[in-house]
Amino acid sequence: MPNYRLTLCYEGTRYRGWQKQGNAENTIQGKLEAALSRLLSEPIEVSGCGRTDAGVHAREQVCSFRSQTPLDCAETLQALRRVLPEDIGAIALIEAEPRFHARLSCQSKTYCYRIRTSEIPDVFTRRFVLPCPGSLDVNAMRAAAAQLTGERDFAAFCSLKNSKKSTVRKLWRIDFQEAGDELRLYYTGDGFLYNMVRSLTGTLLEVGLHRREAADMPLILSSRDRAKAGFTAPALGLSL
Amino acid sequence: MPNYRLTLCYEGTRYRGWQKQGNAENTIQGKLEAALSRLLSEPIEVSGCGRTDAGVHAREQVCSFRSQTPLDCAETLQALRRVLPEDIGAIALIEAEPRFHARLSCQSKTYCYRIRTSEIPDVFTRRFVLPCPGSLDVNAMRAAAAQLTGERDFAAFCSLKNSKKSTVRKLWRIDFQEAGDELRLYYTGDGFLYNMVRSLTGTLLEVGLHRREAADMPLILSSRDRAKAGFTAPALGLSL
Repeated sequence: MPNYRLTLCYEGTRYRGWQKQGNAENTIQGKLEAALSRLLSEPIEVSGCGRTDAGVHAREQVCSFRSQTPLDCAETLQALRRVLPEDIGAIALIEAEPRFHARLSCQSKTYCYRIRTSEIPDVFTRRFVLPCPGSLDVNAMRAAAAQLTGERDFAAFCSLKNSKKSTVRKLWRIDFQEAGDELRLYYTGDGFLYNMVRSLTGTLLEVGLHRREAADMPLILSSRDRAKAGFTAPALGLSL
Repeated sequence: MPNYRLTLCYEGTRYRGWQKQGNAENTIQGKLEAALSRLLSEPIEVSGCGRTDAGVHAREQVCSFRSQTPLDCAETLQALRRVLPEDIGAIALIEAEPRFHARLSCQSKTYCYRIRTSEIPDVFTRRFVLPCPGSLDVNAMRAAAAQLTGERDFAAFCSLKNSKKSTVRKLWRIDFQEAGDELRLYYTGDGFLYNMVRSLTGTLLEVGLHRREAADMPLILSSRDRAKAGFTAPALGLSL
């Protein structure tokens, strides 16, 4: 069966996240599978590289799917753009090698968390950027971030407990980008636990606001206790 | 009575424009006057520098109003931010000199029309940027724009007929800014007729798509006939 690689962007605001849940209509995977199945007149199952939570956006979600019959990629992409809702955008569609699988083949992912440090509201980015007025100590945040990267047990930054599954992940880098009134945190790693980026961001924000110390990061990690880390930053600021 | 100058930004998507219309609730002026009147416990009337149409946004709308009692500007600004809807943002509030009036004192305004030239959808800017996939001949658009600036009778670019009122305006400049997949047109002038920026943009887009010639601009202007000019570009791409 021919195998395809589809790249999507979406605004997650009105969805319950990427992953189909029972009969939940309002998921991005659900909307996409329905659109593709209708277009191609066969049941299509899609795999996504990252399972974004409810309200989280994607600038570039890589997906894969197989179809019974070979597709004209350019034509299918155009058709898909016509049928997808306006908050889901199809960026590219190409034929993939037979063994490609969006989730299993994915070697690293980057999430971006956007923070607005000005107290002046910006109505145009309000769905994508968390307002956090006041001065953030970015140097302290960098010092804390440096202690969170590497191959570590991130149990303290995971909101969903499942004692059987490993909570060890490789977090390669946390990059800081400051531009005007915005601070962006880029997290690159091999995989992320449930709410991991949001709780890392909440913890770094608390460091930036001097509500906790950068030096406390090793203690939080070794506690493996979610209650010891910072708050879970809202979904709206996050995108894959 | 103390006089104040308030700067706003707003996303116009769900409003019927700036100006109050009878009992129309869904106008930006209406929302703002209701919020200020409630906050200050007195009826407040607001004047705006530009009357944006339904669906048009503002990055910086300057308003003025008078109150019976002197205000603490910083405090009132904070309070206003708490009570305004999330798609209206209060940027700044200062005391103004007694004779300042947002509309009458306004000497020039700049509108920006944003156009996305890529065929790849961008879900994050879809409410603010008009998609116009395909190649635009920007040089031809510049040549046409050069013939539209100056003090001219813009009757051919006005959708609302009122034979008693002058349709002469000074359009100082039309600036082009190209960045990545986006083309921005900035219109600066002393005042604008109803739908003027949108019909200028529609006409320039038709030139960019080679559906009409840059050399036709003088004929369109002298016709004073709306039907001779191009289409009215959608409101969503426009902001004050």
